[in-house]
Amino acid sequence: MTGRSVGDVSPQSFHFDEPLPLRSGASLPAYDLMVETYGRLNAERSNAVLVCHALNASHHVAGTYAGQAKSDGWWDNLIGPGKPLDTDRFFVIGVNNLGSCFGSTGPMHANPATGRAWGADFPVVTVQDWVDAQARVVERFGILKLAAVLGGSLGGMQALDWALRYPERLSHCIAIATAPNLSAQNIAFNEVARRAIVTDPDFHGGHFYAHGVVPKRGLRVARMIGHITYLSDDVMAERFGRELKGGELGYSTQDIEFQIESYLRYQGDKFSDYFDANTYLLITRALDYFDPAAEHGGDLALAFAKARAKFLIASFTTDWRFSPARSREIVKALLDNRLDVSYAEIDAPHGHDAFLLDDPRYHGLLRAYFERIATELTR
Amino acid sequence: MTGRSVGDVSPQSFHFDEPLPLRSGASLPAYDLMVETYGRLNAERSNAVLVCHALNASHHVAGTYAGQAKSDGWWDNLIGPGKPLDTDRFFVIGVNNLGSCFGSTGPMHANPATGRAWGADFPVVTVQDWVDAQARVVERFGILKLAAVLGGSLGGMQALDWALRYPERLSHCIAIATAPNLSAQNIAFNEVARRAIVTDPDFHGGHFYAHGVVPKRGLRVARMIGHITYLSDDVMAERFGRELKGGELGYSTQDIEFQIESYLRYQGDKFSDYFDANTYLLITRALDYFDPAAEHGGDLALAFAKARAKFLIASFTTDWRFSPARSREIVKALLDNRLDVSYAEIDAPHGHDAFLLDDPRYHGLLRAYFERIATELTR
Repeated sequence: MTGRSVGDVSPQSFHFDEPLPLRSGASLPAYDLMVETYGRLNAERSNAVLVCHALNASHHVAGTYAGQAKSDGWWDNLIGPGKPLDTDRFFVIGVNNLGSCFGSTGPMHANPATGRAWGADFPVVTVQDWVDAQARVVERFGILKLAAVLGGSLGGMQALDWALRYPERLSHCIAIATAPNLSAQNIAFNEVARRAIVTDPDFHGGHFYAHGVVPKRGLRVARMIGHITYLSDDVMAERFGRELKGGELGYSTQDIEFQIESYLRYQGDKFSDYFDANTYLLITRALDYFDPAAEHGGDLALAFAKARAKFLIASFTTDWRFSPARSREIVKALLDNRLDVSYAEIDAPHGHDAFLLDDPRYHGLLRAYFERIATELTR
Repeated sequence: MTGRSVGDVSPQSFHFDEPLPLRSGASLPAYDLMVETYGRLNAERSNAVLVCHALNASHHVAGTYAGQAKSDGWWDNLIGPGKPLDTDRFFVIGVNNLGSCFGSTGPMHANPATGRAWGADFPVVTVQDWVDAQARVVERFGILKLAAVLGGSLGGMQALDWALRYPERLSHCIAIATAPNLSAQNIAFNEVARRAIVTDPDFHGGHFYAHGVVPKRGLRVARMIGHITYLSDDVMAERFGRELKGGELGYSTQDIEFQIESYLRYQGDKFSDYFDANTYLLITRALDYFDPAAEHGGDLALAFAKARAKFLIASFTTDWRFSPARSREIVKALLDNRLDVSYAEIDAPHGHDAFLLDDPRYHGLLRAYFERIATELTR
């Protein structure tokens, strides 16, 4: 890995008073969004890259928080001076999405109508709603056109939505390890996770804040399911295989026997300590709902008819959550519109998780693509 | 589907007083096994086929219970007069495994040491323990050698174990949609399901019978996870796709939006009404533990060195739970021992579930194989 960290960073909170109309028909009267930026916006305001986050990430994309150990941003391996997304050249913006639990307005904040926490009454938000909110952040920076919108997984869906609905406001759309919509199997995994949370007695119909409890059992199970789908079968076999936690079998149905069990329980525990249950429901629903082709009779090519950006689409061979076949659907729809598309199917063993890792071929690809964008900027 | 039903059948309960030593080092002092048989044992006692069951099945393999609607045995499409496993030729035996919840001694029965239900204290049982118990049933019928042992999934593991540890007591081993052991991913799915059950407050550490409750929340989630792994991505897409339950989106995180959610919730509800939580833990652990190669330094060919049976191994192309690659591992180990092996990789869309369905190519294969066995019997 070449390049340096952007160093210590600080988030900013942006307040918005203009109501945000939502896809559901509801409207959010006023809201705050947590934002971080790295690098400097140039005089032409043409070098901004918006990074959209996936399920459990946030505006804290790169850098560290002063005095906090292990506070690296979630995509710190990609973004910084001399890194593939080079902050010596680009102004990078991270925005925490509405409904999330990292500072932007969400279910744990007060519903102005009642004065109590929104809880399960927080309006259902969609990828489109997030993108609309992000667009207002971009406007506040006085940026008319983003050099790129970049995202992986659910973040990739947001990047695609930018290209679909704000075609004149981005030059490049970079969508990694994503899909044009969720398959029935994808929805099924989300639904099981949601049921685990909702049926946890500590969920209290989504109003657990008032009870001073957290539906940790449900969150743990949800996260364990998620983790299985993030990793490839192969990488799980290689990393854990059938290795035992102790030296020999203990013949117990409840104690940990295999290392993979230990790993999953640890991930579940960690997640349940910091993630909000209502946010989990909202974000998985946003995933379920995203389906740009649906408004065009199921024709994805028609959906992209208004897109004007150039595209980089990338997938990973062992990603069975959002397989290369799903990325190829996007590529086909883009090519049907004679758009400028680069597509890479990266042979990586890590499954869906690969989009967060620093595989040299993957990062080499992004480095080359951002160099192309930088070159275009100087023309 | 050709052939007829075996008609109304009745289970028998077999009592065993001789203690059963278990792999864990514990011993079951006395126990009952529920058994059903179809067809007639011939004078030579050479035409018996033992059918081993998987996770949620039982001794009720074929036929119906008088006066009970929808009481078909779980493999009724395969077994009956004129069916692929023809009860006009074969004497078919179904045994409910120890620890199950369909009548054989299990966690809901009284622990003789305390007089109370075993609950979570029921001894951990393994595939080997089940096979040892099945062998005693077979002995009680005076059968020295089974014509075949047949099983799918976890039932296939039992069939393999018969061939490994009772090599002289079966002529044919038919193992379908199975694996020589679980992968890390397989164990991971089992573990999440177990955690959902164990962390349900109604589980009460496995002693919920005394509290008059059932950990239904956990059982539902466990079953939903299971169902995802039984079906192929493709068949889920074809059967449910992104079809909505209502005409349009309701924008809710807790209500059902998609048909696949409705299906999974229904399956979960149904399962939680009849299946025992402790049995679920026991049976998934038996799956986790099965690993005949482990005792031979990881060498599956060495494990099969003592096998003498002829083998039919079958897998389904879209089964991602126990993929064809896992069956091929078994075939290779058998061929390394120069054993008589037939292997079929059946192009079927239904995923793991295919072994329970009546795909014509699949049933044609079994029909042909049982005809071969019948021919051998008459020689």
